[in-house]
Amino acid sequence: MVLLTRKVEFSAAHYYYLDAWTPEENLRVFGKCANRNGHGHNYTLEVTVEGKVDPVSGFVVDLKALRDTMEREVVQVYDHRHLNLEVPEFRSMLPTTENIAIAIWRRLEAKIDGAKLHRVRVYEMPDLFADYYGEA
Amino acid sequence: MVLLTRKVEFSAAHYYYLDAWTPEENLRVFGKCANRNGHGHNYTLEVTVEGKVDPVSGFVVDLKALRDTMEREVVQVYDHRHLNLEVPEFRSMLPTTENIAIAIWRRLEAKIDGAKLHRVRVYEMPDLFADYYGEA
Amino acid sequence: MVLLTRKVEFSAAHYYYLDAWTPEENLRVFGKCANRNGHGHNYTLEVTVEGKVDPVSGFVVDLKALRDTMEREVVQVYDHRHLNLEVPEFRSMLPTTENIAIAIWRRLEAKIDGAKLHRVRVYEMPDLFADYYGEA
Amino acid sequence: MVLLTRKVEFSAAHYYYLDAWTPEENLRVFGKCANRNGHGHNYTLEVTVEGKVDPVSGFVVDLKALRDTMEREVVQVYDHRHLNLEVPEFRSMLPTTENIAIAIWRRLEAKIDGAKLHRVRVYEMPDLFADYYGEA
Amino acid sequence: MVLLTRKVEFSAAHYYYLDAWTPEENLRVFGKCANRNGHGHNYTLEVTVEGKVDPVSGFVVDLKALRDTMEREVVQVYDHRHLNLEVPEFRSMLPTTENIAIAIWRRLEAKIDGAKLHRVRVYEMPDLFADYYGEA
Amino acid sequence: MVLLTRKVEFSAAHYYYLDAWTPEENLRVFGKCANRNGHGHNYTLEVTVEGKVDPVSGFVVDLKALRDTMEREVVQVYDHRHLNLEVPEFRSMLPTTENIAIAIWRRLEAKIDGAKLHRVRVYEMPDLFADYYGEA
Repeated sequence: MVLLTRKVEFSAAHYYYLDAWTPEENLRVFGKCANRNGHGHNYTLEVTVEGKVDPVSGFVVDLKALRDTMEREVVQVYDHRHLNLEVPEFRSMLPTTENIAIAIWRRLEAKIDGAKLHRVRVYEMPDLFADYYGEA
Repeated sequence: MVLLTRKVEFSAAHYYYLDAWTPEENLRVFGKCANRNGHGHNYTLEVTVEGKVDPVSGFVVDLKALRDTMEREVVQVYDHRHLNLEVPEFRSMLPTTENIAIAIWRRLEAKIDGAKLHRVRVYEMPDLFADYYGEA
Repeated sequence: MVLLTRKVEFSAAHYYYLDAWTPEENLRVFGKCANRNGHGHNYTLEVTVEGKVDPVSGFVVDLKALRDTMEREVVQVYDHRHLNLEVPEFRSMLPTTENIAIAIWRRLEAKIDGAKLHRVRVYEMPDLFADYYGEA
Repeated sequence: MVLLTRKVEFSAAHYYYLDAWTPEENLRVFGKCANRNGHGHNYTLEVTVEGKVDPVSGFVVDLKALRDTMEREVVQVYDHRHLNLEVPEFRSMLPTTENIAIAIWRRLEAKIDGAKLHRVRVYEMPDLFADYYGEA
Repeated sequence: MVLLTRKVEFSAAHYYYLDAWTPEENLRVFGKCANRNGHGHNYTLEVTVEGKVDPVSGFVVDLKALRDTMEREVVQVYDHRHLNLEVPEFRSMLPTTENIAIAIWRRLEAKIDGAKLHRVRVYEMPDLFADYYGEA
Repeated sequence: MVLLTRKVEFSAAHYYYLDAWTPEENLRVFGKCANRNGHGHNYTLEVTVEGKVDPVSGFVVDLKALRDTMEREVVQVYDHRHLNLEVPEFRSMLPTTENIAIAIWRRLEAKIDGAKLHRVRVYEMPDLFADYYGEA
């Protein structure tokens, strides 16, 4: 088994604010991120798939298909968007790095042909990232 | 003369949209950036100052003072903000990478003690940056 | 379960020298690192914690608390220090990348609130790093 | 147990083309990589070994020996070479990132003294890499 | 005046060999690069243009047009190619980093609309790059 | 004219402390850097030379000779050393980033064959660097 990882970037706005909480509580927990005008990041997404190397092509997965899937299922939906306002899954959960990793896993899991999704890593900043390996 | 450069990062939201233009014109010129919900970036700011090296301290500029100035004049105003909605200079000009570099120059120029501001470089993404050297 | 990783940097001096060995033996095993005047590095520390995502806040761990813990337990003790001369744990073991990773694990393990310490990674240089996952 | 990782780079040419396939089929599957004049990359190789930290030296592995082994077994054979034309293992399999990782594992596995080879990671580009952990 | 820089990458093969020289002379001057099977690199190209910031759009140059020009004039010609064998300008000069920078300048100079080409920077490796500012 | 830049790294210890000042004054100006046990950095040195491209070889400078000069004149003297205690020029001036850039210029200026030294850049950390272009 070999793991293959591709990286892409997308730029998006977000904020952390819970209507069920007071402004003070939001500020205490979320700090500067509670600003409802939003701020933003250059996110980096690493998608890792796991599989056998095809003895003829030498590939674990069709690279072009993987890139197209990542582009269609994630980048076109997230890039240059306000995550809270425009991406459906973040109506019911805050777009934290952790939740973005889980959401991208759910978007991709059934769409990888010929290999198994192994890990989704999301960098919000070069010094902060989350890894998700699925439910089990 | 020696040039000294310090780098800091800030995260902000922005969009490119001109009310004087039709939505179609905004979309044609600004593409995905015309989305008025905003998107965002991890900006990197490099500030370069020029001066003589103090023969005793070995410094062109007091590093702590330079960092404090960059923090107070730029980071506290731009970081975790929506540039179009919250930063005064971007009410009358779009927060493009070029304009952000000029705006930061204006914020810093008179505030550097003991050295001359030489260049402001702003990265919007790792593959796109603007340099401004002042008016002359 | 989601893994969350934060990165910080610290700068320190160190050397590798064992008094129980002859100078020749130290030089043979440790090469340039045996110079007792010391040399130094910009270390990068990555701390990974593992936990459930809080369904309300969307966080695995309070990020500010994690950063404060890393700052208080590690950076304030190691940064701008000579590891051999000033950090207690390196009186009885050499500050190799491996031992620094273990020492940081021991400093942090009991101090992470609400999540489990999963991995400590220490880069001594961009091309050399050690990972420690704890005793078991 | 601690994991220690060293990184090295090598530059090489390669192409993906199977004589058993028609030119059209090669182009469809391998795209621009099917150009038989070859193209090339700056590869980055990360070798991770696993072992106990020696209580005296503080090392998992003799770093100089590890670097020499990587240099002798991999860099001298791959660097500034055309992988398809000059490296024996790529006569019978295409030099994809996946296959390069497996080939390097086989070259190194028996040659690491005093520690266990844990992972071989090969970056073909900063946004594409393969990981191999051996057969089992 | 503001300078704006965009970065792109391309992967290509090349070698350094002069037919007018003996094999020994080629080896002495070009070392491992003299291998006529070729080797390759992930090149990074930075194109810097200089101009006035448009007071309405906030742009020095139409970014999409700049990217399209770089893609059409350089990337489509150089990427996944063997520079010596497939790119016309390298029939009469060796594809050294210096010559690649000059060649890209010549390809781009007349094609930048509304701004002036200021600098072409080419990285052959992260630790080696050439800058060209044109003839004068 | 083309500019060619090579990058190398070295690791060293240093501190900032002036005997002519009181401990309080040293602490006020130099902060954590005043610790006389020393701390250290992975320094990155970029050396830029300027010259005509040789019409035959395609080189501005013999790359191997440039690398050897940087290695012999700088790396062998600074790497794995305590700058204050072991490098002669830092007996009479503090090893600040600015002074290190000037000192390396002086070491290299007369030793570059066939091209002109244009700039010495020294990074002390990824977010702090000094540039020196010589006396005039």
